[in-house]
Amino acid sequence: MDLAITNVLALTMRNDRLGILEDATIGVDGGRLAYVGSSDSLDDEAERTIDGDGLVATPGLVNVHAHTDLTLLRGGAQDVPEIEWMNRALGPLSAAMEPEDRVAGARLGVLEALRSGVTTVGEYAHDVERLVDEAHEPMGVRTVATETINAVDGPTDHLGPDEPYPISEEQGWSALERNETLFEACADRERVSALYGPQALDMVPRELLEEIRERAECHDRGIHMHVAQGEREQRQIEARYGAGETTVSVLEELGLVSDRLLGAHLHGATAEERTRLADSGVRMAANPSSIAAIDGITPPIVEYRGSGGVAGVGTDQAPGPGGHDFLRELRTTALLAKTKRTDPTAFPAWEALRVATIEGAHALGIEDRVGSLEAGKRADLVLFDLEHPSTAPVVAEPLHTAVPNLVYGSNGGVVDTVLVEGEVVLADGELRTAEEEAIVAEANDRAADVFDRAGDAWRAAGSELVGAVEDGWV
Amino acid sequence: MDLAITNVLALTMRNDRLGILEDATIGVDGGRLAYVGSSDSLDDEAERTIDGDGLVATPGLVNVHAHTDLTLLRGGAQDVPEIEWMNRALGPLSAAMEPEDRVAGARLGVLEALRSGVTTVGEYAHDVERLVDEAHEPMGVRTVATETINAVDGPTDHLGPDEPYPISEEQGWSALERNETLFEACADRERVSALYGPQALDMVPRELLEEIRERAECHDRGIHMHVAQGEREQRQIEARYGAGETTVSVLEELGLVSDRLLGAHLHGATAEERTRLADSGVRMAANPSSIAAIDGITPPIVEYRGSGGVAGVGTDQAPGPGGHDFLRELRTTALLAKTKRTDPTAFPAWEALRVATIEGAHALGIEDRVGSLEAGKRADLVLFDLEHPSTAPVVAEPLHTAVPNLVYGSNGGVVDTVLVEGEVVLADGELRTAEEEAIVAEANDRAADVFDRAGDAWRAAGSELVGAVEDGWV
Repeated sequence: MDLAITNVLALTMRNDRLGILEDATIGVDGGRLAYVGSSDSLDDEAERTIDGDGLVATPGLVNVHAHTDLTLLRGGAQDVPEIEWMNRALGPLSAAMEPEDRVAGARLGVLEALRSGVTTVGEYAHDVERLVDEAHEPMGVRTVATETINAVDGPTDHLGPDEPYPISEEQGWSALERNETLFEACADRERVSALYGPQALDMVPRELLEEIRERAECHDRGIHMHVAQGEREQRQIEARYGAGETTVSVLEELGLVSDRLLGAHLHGATAEERTRLADSGVRMAANPSSIAAIDGITPPIVEYRGSGGVAGVGTDQAPGPGGHDFLRELRTTALLAKTKRTDPTAFPAWEALRVATIEGAHALGIEDRVGSLEAGKRADLVLFDLEHPSTAPVVAEPLHTAVPNLVYGSNGGVVDTVLVEGEVVLADGELRTAEEEAIVAEANDRAADVFDRAGDAWRAAGSELVGAVEDGWV
Repeated sequence: MDLAITNVLALTMRNDRLGILEDATIGVDGGRLAYVGSSDSLDDEAERTIDGDGLVATPGLVNVHAHTDLTLLRGGAQDVPEIEWMNRALGPLSAAMEPEDRVAGARLGVLEALRSGVTTVGEYAHDVERLVDEAHEPMGVRTVATETINAVDGPTDHLGPDEPYPISEEQGWSALERNETLFEACADRERVSALYGPQALDMVPRELLEEIRERAECHDRGIHMHVAQGEREQRQIEARYGAGETTVSVLEELGLVSDRLLGAHLHGATAEERTRLADSGVRMAANPSSIAAIDGITPPIVEYRGSGGVAGVGTDQAPGPGGHDFLRELRTTALLAKTKRTDPTAFPAWEALRVATIEGAHALGIEDRVGSLEAGKRADLVLFDLEHPSTAPVVAEPLHTAVPNLVYGSNGGVVDTVLVEGEVVLADGELRTAEEEAIVAEANDRAADVFDRAGDAWRAAGSELVGAVEDGWV
């Protein structure tokens, strides 16, 4: 056995509960979990041992939906009306990014994610294979990669809300070919798998969606799509598909509502539609901080799970919500859910931890490999040191305060060790697969150039942030 | 001059804006700010210099309302119905605390606060002078201390909602005497001042409130009180003062609605009452994470400020919201405000930073001493290192991303240096006034004993958490 972690408080997520094991030993061999159980019952000798006394072990956290390349633009677009965020605030900055800038942003985002205990990122990006090759895989994080298929060609901010976006069939099909190449490139990789990525129903033509559905069924693959993002999307759908149609009704007609689909957001769906989606096995990617920051809306994760649906949590992109600290995202998810429902029992800490692990893995379709601490699964796990000013004290009786303190008290600073596929990616809170300082420094340098190149266009776009700068607010 | 911080990006909070100064120098002499301005214009030599290149300086953050002693009980009471939180979850644990446990909890809470850039704590506790003497003052944080005056004598959980709490006049007057002793003890202290602390209108008899008002007016002192905490309080008020009366109407009649009053919470007040409070100069202490976690409610801080009222933010207590990381609290305040109003422009980053500094100081009545970086004020300031995986990149054009990244991206890990009254309390992210590890270790040891002593009573109280433990959830 390569590694044994001894005397640890393990939250295994087994048996549809937290599966709390005190004084547990976790054995790792060849990238798999070889043993999870009582320290007494293990007689195998390990080449290396980590004394887990005082630490808490959980399955690696699963961030189901992120655009990490945009981490380079952190701080560039927030506190503006929803209608301005994409086109007037983020857009001009994003347009100034070169492929190398996107890689630098992804490396910063993955660093932040790993430091907060994330072992799987559901990455969603244009030319995602490059990000995976140059950021995610060398840094050691497991990745479910989605190639963005977006056929909208040219600016849309001059259009009225009921004028359909200009669509380029060729651009869409070309993106689908990149998506196919991605599947081929992932075929033999341990830590990378792929999904189809039609951006959203209003941004991809009907024929292309039908082709994607056919290919997904033919090859038994999944689809990751932004679904029912709100009023603007709804008006595009009615303009393209007719009055009374909705994203969900059209997706149903196209045969896309099935257990192959991971739908991000869903806040534009009605309660009845959500129930139909849940009944059909559609999984939800909820991004509470992002949708709160950009739309002022709390996504319906409690409601979707209440309808029997499976959901994971994602951090989406840094501009707006601020970043990829996944522990912070769990706390935010819980507090937003409580206020949405005026119910302090909504989304308790234990639900947060299951959604962050086994249920997130289910949302990405990899629950057979990761998401719980069980012999035979991949060795993706996190060791937390909660003897920290924000998470102490940790007591085991009359309740395990580690559970609420991990969700409500912690931040990335309490992550001690991260293993992915048995590899120690982070130890003593430090990344082992790349130089943290170099990643931050490169991001700073590249961001200075991107913001400089984009400055005139950003100002000309005239979001409310431009006035705030002139007024001495930012 | 004792100290010069050079080449720093300073957010001074001057001129009713953020007062952003690039490449600034901040001079400190004898506990005061001696100079804040361009690096070129300073010719005084400093005994010590901190190179602020790459750092961001702000006034020290002001946490207006906290019960830090309860940090020892972090993880003991959350995810339960509001009606259970105080009496069935927190109460049995709190009852098992000895004075030394409260000191240990306060030390942990103050440590967490200082590490997140807080230089002033609005502490509210029973026998607060002991906490100040043994935790706050030796650790170096500035404290506005409020002695809890609570006349409720004995348990209340067996009472119907319309049965008035049992009141002990003697207990109330005895607490007022402790409050007077506190004022005397604070008279000559640089970092400690005091407020009167009638706990809440339903917990203090009328005559005592009248006496407090008279003494406050006679000695020109402030009053810090929990106001309009919701349905349970409202029913007590009607039972005691008559149908149709509310907390605000009774406080008005008692002459307590004035600019002497700092009112915590206010979520039970109507919009019209809030306007009357704001017009009268009452300041608000908003505790968004706490009220979200305990009540499932977003406090009306945006609404109160919109009515012209002054507000500060507090972290209240760790059980429930999780702790005293004030940077996290600012982000939470903003995201909750945005979803409450379905408006992503609500409570932007710059408002968060003003509320956290100069407006919080105003809420506590110490804005003449702290809250902005201006020559003559006390040298309470923070240096943030935002070249960190959660807050980079920092660019200055076309906007200062430091402003949003400090609010939306950061956590306590980005605090590099904290000065209070010119003393370096924290440097290189490490506390200089006490041993961090010893504080955490003592809290762990004492919490184990408190939770052990309280275990049977906590289980017997039968909150929903007890069932959750039995079901393997926590």
